[in-house]
Order: sequence, then C-alpha cells, then structure tokens
Amino acid sequence: MAESKITPRAQDFAAWYQDVVMQGDMAEPAEIVKGCMVIKANGYAVWEALQREFDDRFKATGHQNVYFPLLIPQSFLKKEAEHVEGFSPELAVVTIAGGKELEEPYVIRPTSETIIGHFFSRWIQSWRDLPLMLNQWANIIRWELRTRMFLRTTEFLWQEGHTAHSSHEEALDEALRILDIYAEVAEDVMAMPVIKGAKTLSEKFAGALRSYAIEAMMQNGLALQAGTSHDLGQNFGRAFEVQFQTKEGKLDYVWQTSWGVSTRLIGGLIMTHSDDKGLVLPPKVAPMKGVLVPIYRKDEERTAVMETARKLAQDLGIKIDDREGQTPGSKFFHWERRGVPVVIELGPRDVAAGNVVLKRRDTGTKHTVSLAEARHEFEKMLDQIQRDLYSTAKKRLNENSVQANSLAEVEKILRDVTAERGGGKFVFTHLKDDPACEARLKEFKATVRCIPLADEQDGAGTCIITGEHVPKRVVIAKAY
Amino acid sequence: MAESKITPRAQDFAAWYQDVVMQGDMAEPAEIVKGCMVIKANGYAVWEALQREFDDRFKATGHQNVYFPLLIPQSFLKKEAEHVEGFSPELAVVTIAGGKELEEPYVIRPTSETIIGHFFSRWIQSWRDLPLMLNQWANIIRWELRTRMFLRTTEFLWQEGHTAHSSHEEALDEALRILDIYAEVAEDVMAMPVIKGAKTLSEKFAGALRSYAIEAMMQNGLALQAGTSHDLGQNFGRAFEVQFQTKEGKLDYVWQTSWGVSTRLIGGLIMTHSDDKGLVLPPKVAPMKGVLVPIYRKDEERTAVMETARKLAQDLGIKIDDREGQTPGSKFFHWERRGVPVVIELGPRDVAAGNVVLKRRDTGTKHTVSLAEARHEFEKMLDQIQRDLYSTAKKRLNENSVQANSLAEVEKILRDVTAERGGGKFVFTHLKDDPACEARLKEFKATVRCIPLADEQDGAGTCIITGEHVPKRVVIAKAY
Repeated sequence: MAESKITPRAQDFAAWYQDVVMQGDMAEPAEIVKGCMVIKANGYAVWEALQREFDDRFKATGHQNVYFPLLIPQSFLKKEAEHVEGFSPELAVVTIAGGKELEEPYVIRPTSETIIGHFFSRWIQSWRDLPLMLNQWANIIRWELRTRMFLRTTEFLWQEGHTAHSSHEEALDEALRILDIYAEVAEDVMAMPVIKGAKTLSEKFAGALRSYAIEAMMQNGLALQAGTSHDLGQNFGRAFEVQFQTKEGKLDYVWQTSWGVSTRLIGGLIMTHSDDKGLVLPPKVAPMKGVLVPIYRKDEERTAVMETARKLAQDLGIKIDDREGQTPGSKFFHWERRGVPVVIELGPRDVAAGNVVLKRRDTGTKHTVSLAEARHEFEKMLDQIQRDLYSTAKKRLNENSVQANSLAEVEKILRDVTAERGGGKFVFTHLKDDPACEARLKEFKATVRCIPLADEQDGAGTCIITGEHVPKRVVIAKAY
Repeated sequence: MAESKITPRAQDFAAWYQDVVMQGDMAEPAEIVKGCMVIKANGYAVWEALQREFDDRFKATGHQNVYFPLLIPQSFLKKEAEHVEGFSPELAVVTIAGGKELEEPYVIRPTSETIIGHFFSRWIQSWRDLPLMLNQWANIIRWELRTRMFLRTTEFLWQEGHTAHSSHEEALDEALRILDIYAEVAEDVMAMPVIKGAKTLSEKFAGALRSYAIEAMMQNGLALQAGTSHDLGQNFGRAFEVQFQTKEGKLDYVWQTSWGVSTRLIGGLIMTHSDDKGLVLPPKVAPMKGVLVPIYRKDEERTAVMETARKLAQDLGIKIDDREGQTPGSKFFHWERRGVPVVIELGPRDVAAGNVVLKRRDTGTKHTVSLAEARHEFEKMLDQIQRDLYSTAKKRLNENSVQANSLAEVEKILRDVTAERGGGKFVFTHLKDDPACEARLKEFKATVRCIPLADEQDGAGTCIITGEHVPKRVVIAKAY
C-alpha cells in the first residue's frame, strides 16, 4: 500500500479521491456488502473529532442525546405520504428474524422521523412539554445505486436532531440556528467555506415544508451538500398525531424540525484540502497535530537525538515515530499521506545547533526554529495552516462562482463538467422555485443547489425560464 | 409520570427495576419493535460517561477505533461452525433491499468476528502487521425471546474489540488485560464489585477457545455477566484464512481476541445501587453531579436567593433548577428519581446565615455547610458517596457468597430464587468444567457463572457430581 501511487487530480479527480482515501488510512471499500465501506483508524478519528465539535454545540444549545431503535415497522413509513414516496426505493427490509418470517417486516432506518413521531405522540401532551429537543448519533441505511466512499454509501454514520415546538416561528428559528452551527463547524473547524441556503421545493426532504442546507465547493468545482436542516411544519405531527394543549387551552399539532450531518462531511473535507501527495487535514480535525521523526545514522547519534526528541515531543504533546527498520524518508512519506499537519524533523546537527525543523503538510515548506521556540512556533504554524486552508478554499469558491443570465449560458458553463474531469462552477442565475423550471437543468445533469439565505449577488431579476420576477439569484451546479 | 409510584424492591424486584428505569428517564420499552427500547436522555448520558471511561483506557493501551458494516453476508456466519450454531437462532435477516429480493441475504451483525475476519485476511500478511488492535462502538441485533430494558434487548449498543496477534501467549495477555480494564471501570467508576473469571466450556462464546467475564451481583442476589473477553485461539484465523509470515519465515494463522461491554452495564448499575425512591447513580457516571434547588416564597426573597444561587452553582459547576411553577418539593422528587448524587438546597435563611444544605441521594442525609466551604464539602461528599456505594455493594456480595459441598445443598440454596422474589446467592462449590456436570444445574435454572481467576475460597476439592479432583471452587448462581 505504501508504495502505491496517487493519481494526479488533473488526470482523474475521482480516481485521485479514491487513492487519497485509501492511502490516508481513512476508509476502504467493503465490496462484500453492497456500497459499504470500512472506516479505518485515521478516518474514524477524524469523525470522532467532528462529533465532539458538533455534540458540544448541540448540548450548549439545549439538546439532549437519546437513542431510538434501528428497526422501524414498515407501516410507519407510509403514514406521511411524501416521506414514503421519497424513501421507499432505498429501503433495506428485514423479513426474517429469530428463525421465523415476520408478520410485519421492519425497515432499517433510512432516517428516524417516523419512529420518533410515534414517541413524540406519547411524550407530548401540553405546551409545558415543549420544546423537546433531541439528537441521536446513529447508523443509517439507504440502498444507493452509485456509491463513493464517505460521499454516498449504503450505510453511513450521522447525527439526526429531532425537535418539537409550539409554534412555527420557534421551529423555523431552530432549523436556522442549527444551520448556523453546521456552517460554523464547516468553516471554523473544517476550514471548508459553505453557502447557507434553502433547498428548492423539488430538492427538499420528503415530508418537509422547506429544507435548508450548507453547500460546499470541491476542488473539481462540484457542489457537495454538507448538512441539511428541515422545517417539517406540522406534517409529521399530523401523521403521528402529536397534539398538545396550547397555553390558551386549545389542541394543536406540534411544529417539528429535523437536521443531520454525516460521515459525508469527511468526503468534503478530503476534496477541499487534499493534494496530489495525499491527505491534507486542517489542524482542528487532525487526529495527530504533529509527529516527530528523529534522524540518526550511528548509535551515538541516536542517543543524543532521542533524548532531545523525547523532551520536545512531550512539550509539544505529539508522538515520536521511533519505528525501527524504517528510513526517515519512508516515515515522512507515511505521515504525508495521512495528512498530519506538521512533521518535525530532528537530526544530530539540529540537536548540536539547538534547532529543529518544522515542515508544513499543506505547503511543504520547512522552517528551522530554535528548540526553545519550538512549542510557540508549532502552535503558530498550526493556526496559520488552519487559516490558510480556509483562505485557499474560499478563494477557490469565489473564483469559481460565476453569473449567467440565460439557460444557454448556464448549460454552456456546466455541460462538460464531470466528477472525473472537474471544471465545475457555482453558477448564479435567476430561476423560479418551480420543479418545471428545474427539470430543464436535468438535460445537462445540473441542479439548483440552494437559494442563498444572504443575497450574495446583485439582487432581484427575471427567471431565465419563465421571465417572472424572482427576488435573488440561485446557485446552480453539478453536484455529488 | 412524576406522580407514579415505584414498586418496592421487597414486593417485586423485577417491577421495581422497570419503574426505576422508566421514572429515572433512563429508557422506555419500544414495544412496536420487538424487544427494543428507547434510551432516554438520562440513560444515554450515563452511556456516554461509560463510553469515555472505556474509550480512554482502550486508546491508552494501543487500540484504535474503526467502523465495520452493519450488514454481514449470511454465508460469512457459516465459516466458523460453532459460531453459526450459536448465533443462527438470533439473527435478523435482510432479504429485500432497494425494492428487490437479494440474491444473498444479509444478517444484521449479532457480533462482528466474521466480517472483521474477512478484512484481517486482507490486511495481515506479515508479523510486522501484528498486533492489530481495533475497537468499534456499534449497535447489535440479537433476536431474544425474553427481554428486559438494558439487560437483554433485541438491539443494544456496545463496543467490540477485535485484535490479532502472532502468538497465543500475546493474545491471552490481551484478553486478560481487557478483563482488567472492564473490572477497573466496573469497580472504580461504576462502584460495582465484580468477580473476574473464566466461563466454563458450555458457557463460552461460540467460536472461542475460552471466554473470560466479569460477574456482578445484583441486589436480588442474581448474577449479571457484565463484560466478556474471549481468547479466540486460531479458530477465526483458520475460518477466514488470516495467515501471516512469522519472523522465522513460516506461515501461521493469527491468534485473535474479541471483547465487549454493552448498554447492559447500565442495567447492572441500576440494580446495584438504586433504592425504593428510584435511581441512585455513583458520582463518576452521573450526568449531573449535583443540582441546586433555590427556595423562596416572596419576590424579595427570590432576588437574594437567586444571586447567591448563581454564584454557588457556577462555583460548583452545577445547574440551578429555576423552573417556575414547580414547588421545591416537586423538584426534589424530580431529581431524586433521576439519581442526582447531591441536591443543594438554598433558602433565604441559608443565605442570611451564609450556609447551604447538601443532601446525599444515597443516604438521604442533609449536611449544612458554610457557603465558603461549599465547594470543598460538595467534592468531599461526591467522593464519599462513590466510596460508600462501592462498600455497600461489596458487603452485599460478601454476605451473599456462600459455600456448598453437594448438589443438594446448591439446589436448596438456589431453588426458589427468582428475579422477582430475589434471595439469590453466589454459591461457591467444586464442580468439574464439563457440560454434563453443568447440565445438572439446569433442573433448578442455575448456571456456573465463572471459575474465578483468583482463588477466593479454600482451594482444591472434589467435584460434587463426579467426585474428581478440581483445583478451585466455581461460582454458581441464578443469573440475568
């Protein structure tokens, strides 16, 4: 594995991605289980870092973690008409259990609105029981036809928040507060700039009034929907009879939200920052911020180098790669592919001079600093890498955002874009939020990614299909 | 719910347990999904606390977290003969996915030795790849006939460690090191004394050479197997062709271990410490160590009390229960049922006197301390509760451990014991590790819980069935 080459991005972006994932010890395909992957140690550690960032923020905003069953009675899915239509084709169904054919099959959760709706109807009687703000960390199965590690897998890991409120206003506030949390973690932690927006009616979650999402741009210019937050209105409240007595003594259905981010984020992280040498991780999500590679040839060199190395590693809170029988070169290669932000080189000459070399993974540049300053310089470098990765990605997003004012123009920009070849753009244009208009984009496999919440462009205009007035430009792109 | 009574332990221990679980906001049955439960906020927070304790220890001993697929090709289970026999009756089977009948059905993992064996065979070629020490946090489904919340549910959450080694000695060391970690968390964190021992051949894991377990005693004297660690020998290595080149250049099968603890631990925690008033939690796993209940009648009292309360709560790192429209009495009741170790009462007279009242959940005793000493006294009280809960449970274990020297004696002690009535004992007797001998215990529904690793009794003796020499007494009990 360590010997394998990474396909350059310019040659085949999709092949590059697969190589980076595999050689970065992030995941590997589990082709014996259709469309599934094994999340390997480095990948899972990144997921744990992301979980902590989200979980802390959910708890700080009053959410509690709980756990609902994996299996859902098949009949539950049918209670919300749009929901069953949206998810039916993707279900995995348990028909046999404990050696017997089941009277009613269970589906493996493709999402948990239905089973949670059932329990909400048990738990909620009065406005005093509201808001109810729950979250669960869980695995999900959706039988997908085309899969790619992290980006779209039959099974994936996610969190799903489910909340119930006494008014639509409060539910909408919640949905948008969560969208802000998603954007904050994406930008501040993952260094991945995103556009917050509403999904169009034809792209919304099956059963929602309106869905909101954060959309990121990958290095090939394709869009990645990186997190969604849904205003469910009273649809599930009605379907599962979740009624409450209002302060005024009337009966009403609860207003619900649901929202989720998944291991898909890791795919986004990889396609935002990594390069032709392999994985690049922003320091805030990197399982190892740095690693120290000691360099020596003779035994007497070893003693002096290792003594200084141990002190330094302890001071920086990092590990020493002291594997025997591996050259320093093969160690550098090893950590480079795994995306460790800073590799610290320490040889006998460095020790003699009281210096140490810090090498940045993102730029490849080496900085010689004094041992006394090493900790300060290391932390400064981590901060700088985090900031630079964001700036680079933000610049890319800006440079690949373009305006178009006719369908022909949009098509010309996006027609030849593929995940493999790249060249994708975020095309800002005026388009009515109408499935009939959006259907015209299918001819060249593009979609409306979102209607940005902020007006990032030049305001109102006329729809490129119907000529009707629309208040702002939408984002059209090819997407994962 | 808050008005419901808790069945006293003496009346019906099983009903008491169910009441404590429900009213402690720990879980509730999800009877729409056979044998499943919803883990509620307090229960899940305890699980998170336990996860952190175990996870830190696994990582400190060189294990890495990963994630393998939920679904396993049905044929995989059949590769290890004992394994398929052990798990077949409990499998949930996915036969339909994506709208189509599957050519080969998948089972939902009842444990992951088989799918991990498949990947080990890909990843391990040489002694340099060993040891490989992985762990995953996951959900599991085993179709159980009789279920009880936390103790035995169709779906449960657990961690499963899977390691591969180049020698049997190293694998056995690993299995026993993990057993030590399990015992340490059980005793030092959960305040639940356990006996470490080997399972008999008829009680071992399907596919293992030998299983080890920690066994705890519940308040009704029944045993609870609280964690298991398996020496798998080369059984799965052979079944999945996990071969490696030894240092000497030969080919050999790897030596494996697997080990797990699950949400079942929470059931053990509850049945070890809780009382007729509801849940009791040891401070180290309590999601809230304490809560402050302010007491006031008039508005002018409120201002003074709340000002002091806010400072104190911040100092102690706890929350204030400032819910309006609830009496202090109903708040005390609320937190008592949820097992919060220390409730802090603060009224106008306390504020005037510079005092505060700390009430212990376990003993119900109140301690008036000065505000200046509150933090110190609070922390001292938490330490004391943690120690006292352990001592009480340890004393119970000792008092209910008895020796017997004939089958008739064992039967007399255990015959009338049930989960509902209680009266259980750990009966130490000499019995040969032979399924034929153990079968005799089935007549009165007892089992050998373990062959203790330490010789806790009087050494060797003659088997009460065969009269053969056996090196030490085993533990016989009725069990969950």
